[in-house]
Amino acid sequence: MRTHTCGELRIEDTGKEVVLCGWVQRSRDLGGMVFVDLRDRYGITQLVFSDSIDEELYKKAKTLGREFVIKAKGTVVERTNKNLEISTGYIEIVSKSLEILSESENVPFTIEEETDGGEELRMKYRYLDLRRNVVQNNLIIRHHLAFEVRNFLNQFSFLEVETPVLIKSTPEGARDFLVPSRLNPGQFYALPQSPQTFKQLLMVGGIDKYFQIVKCFRDEDFRADRQPEFSQIDCEMSFVTKEKIYEIFESLVRHLFVRIKGFEPEKFYVMKYDDAIKYYGTDKPDTRFDMKFVELDKFAKGKGFKVFDDAELVVGIKIPGCADYSRKQLDSLTEWVKRPQIGAKGLVYVKINSDGTYKSSVDKFFSNEDIKEWADAFNAEEGDLLLILAGENKHTRKALGELRLEMGNRLELRDNKKYKCLWVEDFPLLEWDEETSRYYAMHHPFTTPLEEDIPKLDKDPGNVRANAYDLVINGVEIAGGSLRINNRELQSKMFEALGISKEEAEKQFGFLLNAFKYGVPPHGGIAFGFDRLCALFAGTDSIRDVIAFPKNNAGRDIMIDSPAAIDEKQLNDIKLKIDIKK
Amino acid sequence: MRTHTCGELRIEDTGKEVVLCGWVQRSRDLGGMVFVDLRDRYGITQLVFSDSIDEELYKKAKTLGREFVIKAKGTVVERTNKNLEISTGYIEIVSKSLEILSESENVPFTIEEETDGGEELRMKYRYLDLRRNVVQNNLIIRHHLAFEVRNFLNQFSFLEVETPVLIKSTPEGARDFLVPSRLNPGQFYALPQSPQTFKQLLMVGGIDKYFQIVKCFRDEDFRADRQPEFSQIDCEMSFVTKEKIYEIFESLVRHLFVRIKGFEPEKFYVMKYDDAIKYYGTDKPDTRFDMKFVELDKFAKGKGFKVFDDAELVVGIKIPGCADYSRKQLDSLTEWVKRPQIGAKGLVYVKINSDGTYKSSVDKFFSNEDIKEWADAFNAEEGDLLLILAGENKHTRKALGELRLEMGNRLELRDNKKYKCLWVEDFPLLEWDEETSRYYAMHHPFTTPLEEDIPKLDKDPGNVRANAYDLVINGVEIAGGSLRINNRELQSKMFEALGISKEEAEKQFGFLLNAFKYGVPPHGGIAFGFDRLCALFAGTDSIRDVIAFPKNNAGRDIMIDSPAAIDEKQLNDIKLKIDIKK
Repeated sequence: MRTHTCGELRIEDTGKEVVLCGWVQRSRDLGGMVFVDLRDRYGITQLVFSDSIDEELYKKAKTLGREFVIKAKGTVVERTNKNLEISTGYIEIVSKSLEILSESENVPFTIEEETDGGEELRMKYRYLDLRRNVVQNNLIIRHHLAFEVRNFLNQFSFLEVETPVLIKSTPEGARDFLVPSRLNPGQFYALPQSPQTFKQLLMVGGIDKYFQIVKCFRDEDFRADRQPEFSQIDCEMSFVTKEKIYEIFESLVRHLFVRIKGFEPEKFYVMKYDDAIKYYGTDKPDTRFDMKFVELDKFAKGKGFKVFDDAELVVGIKIPGCADYSRKQLDSLTEWVKRPQIGAKGLVYVKINSDGTYKSSVDKFFSNEDIKEWADAFNAEEGDLLLILAGENKHTRKALGELRLEMGNRLELRDNKKYKCLWVEDFPLLEWDEETSRYYAMHHPFTTPLEEDIPKLDKDPGNVRANAYDLVINGVEIAGGSLRINNRELQSKMFEALGISKEEAEKQFGFLLNAFKYGVPPHGGIAFGFDRLCALFAGTDSIRDVIAFPKNNAGRDIMIDSPAAIDEKQLNDIKLKIDIKK
Repeated sequence: MRTHTCGELRIEDTGKEVVLCGWVQRSRDLGGMVFVDLRDRYGITQLVFSDSIDEELYKKAKTLGREFVIKAKGTVVERTNKNLEISTGYIEIVSKSLEILSESENVPFTIEEETDGGEELRMKYRYLDLRRNVVQNNLIIRHHLAFEVRNFLNQFSFLEVETPVLIKSTPEGARDFLVPSRLNPGQFYALPQSPQTFKQLLMVGGIDKYFQIVKCFRDEDFRADRQPEFSQIDCEMSFVTKEKIYEIFESLVRHLFVRIKGFEPEKFYVMKYDDAIKYYGTDKPDTRFDMKFVELDKFAKGKGFKVFDDAELVVGIKIPGCADYSRKQLDSLTEWVKRPQIGAKGLVYVKINSDGTYKSSVDKFFSNEDIKEWADAFNAEEGDLLLILAGENKHTRKALGELRLEMGNRLELRDNKKYKCLWVEDFPLLEWDEETSRYYAMHHPFTTPLEEDIPKLDKDPGNVRANAYDLVINGVEIAGGSLRINNRELQSKMFEALGISKEEAEKQFGFLLNAFKYGVPPHGGIAFGFDRLCALFAGTDSIRDVIAFPKNNAGRDIMIDSPAAIDEKQLNDIKLKIDIKK
């Protein structure tokens, strides 16, 4: 139907007879000449329809509107007025025929690099938004990433194995989406939150290197930038150490950077979870910039400043070269930390003036010598600014971690072109939940405790560390994994620690416990958030930008208007009744 | 953890210190020496534990049972007693240490090429069945097929785009699986039967070459070898002709044959649907052997044989060289066609004897000259056997089609090593359904009618042919596709022909009709049944053999015991009540 795409013709093609198809990006009538920018996925080519060559054709070309789909035949000629910004800008097509394949009404927003359409409108007309270069490029990056992941893992003998989508609900963990079974009335399938147990069974089955790029599902109360369905690069290996896993998946990430970005990221560091919390207040530190936490308790307490004296923790960060912050700037920072999302009670600052003196918001309570101790603890130099928070340990660290990121943003230290990759490891095995008064698995119930912590599992489960690790890039959790339990006794003990009864464990995970009777290799794995990885490579903050047909934050697909009511007959088929009052 | 796999060591490795991990396939104590066959995904290597080298180790080795998982260190030595049947058979490992990583109870069936486990048992313990070579090989073929499909399509600029799994129910077509939405009580998502509308919207969005290997779902009343979830290679292209689609996907199939099988199949033929029915009684003829139908009405009717006289159709096939069939053989064939699955009333035969005379089961009614006319119509030669059925047109063709396949089987003409690929095209657009007294789309409601048949759409819809095509290999439908409607008016007309009201069309497909307002390229595509394709390449008849964790014919996963009852709390969350009486 076409001989070339709209991104293909060059000066060397001059003289060729060609047929192009595409969308009318723009059409200009210069009196006697109509110029049409014809667009497809590959580029834009200029067509010329001239009154002097074919009057009929010229008249027809004048009727073309934006987004009409046309087919045009013509000859490639060199342009007098070259456009150096596009790869086809040296040529144009002198057209000899024109077929309108499909007309278009006025589109609801402009199909341009920068569009006038708001997000809601663009989601409703996603098929039009997809025509924009920036959106197509995101899908192209996604395609290439998936392709290169497969290439790499295939080379290392990983097998891609499809695990089932219609599985069984396991109330442990997040909420499942359920699927009523018509043939088994009153029974349900569930959609997988991850293929965790299936990939472990593949290890039991001797498939010693498995991966899958796979859709997973989580019925969460929706919040910003979560999707009820999301994609994972799910991987598992047998007879493997943690170090081997780091090595292979660091190589994978390097491979992706080389193939997609054309460069390799710097060395991957390894950080203990405890250190991440201690120095960055988060388990996913953005290490593109420094500003490590410094604890000031021993200098700051006992000097009569009640806020510090009553605090479980006094901790701060050093902002290099910001001692000249104005009162207004500091007030705005104080307001910022007091916002409910951050929740600090106040902010203490210390300026290390250029003459070596100090100016702080707590001068009343602390002498110059006191403050010097703080400055020394920070290794602060003239011109630096210290920002200090105090309060309950966990909460204060979290707030300071947020402030650190905010300062990174304000000082433009979070460079989009820079990539810092970090393994965070030795996570706590269990998390205490106040509401339900029980422990939950921080990763999942199949993760091994550190060998040396196993004895603590009975009497001090909260302090047991896990063979669990996350890959963090630029402060974003890109992947997470663990070494798995491969024996029945430890697995049972783990269920016990989670307060899952023997009966319940048998009901939910009987097939896995049963499998553990028959020779289970040591195994471990990792899962990458594929949407998140795509967003990182596409340089966008929102995973919606890298999903062809995303749902909104309320889980609705506003293009197809789903979810929706169903027919009474369909409800009858699955033997269910809607009971909103419940 | 290991230095080599169990399939890797060769005579050149003699003298190396190695560490192997794997499962004990078999262990033999020859008195003072224990020989262990250690198995992993890659092969089997023999370990030797010798009393004279290390008594402790020897004693430990004696405790090893089948399917124990072990790690052994040792030295590669040349075997005196070589095993030429395995690639590692020239060497063995003289072991220096042994670690039991996981013990095993007695497995419920033998983990061997030929197992003693029945299908039900092997499904329940699928993770053990997966240890068998034959099952692993099927998964390896599946992995390679998917990998090569992606390689090929990537080369041709196809983009793999993930379409959503949580979509909207469209009662047109087969039954959807439904997913209650907790956040929108009383509303439901549906799981896709195919990404059809989404891939069409991708075409509207300018992604002119799309593909996806994707899970699809169909809530059918279960029957042999159907799975509620199955995988498709789903493809769509814009600005494309049917011929171009044939060309690209024939190349894809050729590529797969070359990469997986090491050879190319013969030329792909194109057959009209009408001819397939006329000559083979089916729309998916197995063309590995001939036996085309010959209609005998004009010779066979009006000679007083009531069965033929009353029949709408008299039609037969020629079985070369089978004139020597015994009475018993012919009776058994008659019984075979009278089985309820085939449903013929009887079978007429004609033997072309080696002396040129005829012997038939209807000699009473037909003269030698009459029969000669039949034989000539068949181009029959001495030694051939004619088998003839009569009755209602459609039913008789179908029965004869089945008989043809059965004869192909009996004469071993359906050679597993031979591959005949065939495009069947120009399917009817619509099918009349007696039960609901309306037309249904034979392919789907988005398929274009043949240009020349469009005028018939109003008054003679049953005779409108479609731009629809199937790829049939060895009598199995491997792929199917069509050119799609790309204009609003024709699409509305199509919904009308299907008896779908304007309102209903708007409710179900409004987003697509809306999209058709904004410049839609001509487009078409194809979808391969990926499970079926894998089964073809694996040389098995059942798709269950090429699925890692299949469900049984009742849609149950008997390994994890799903579907299952859910908690009352989960039901409350989604505001549903079970009402079995309904």
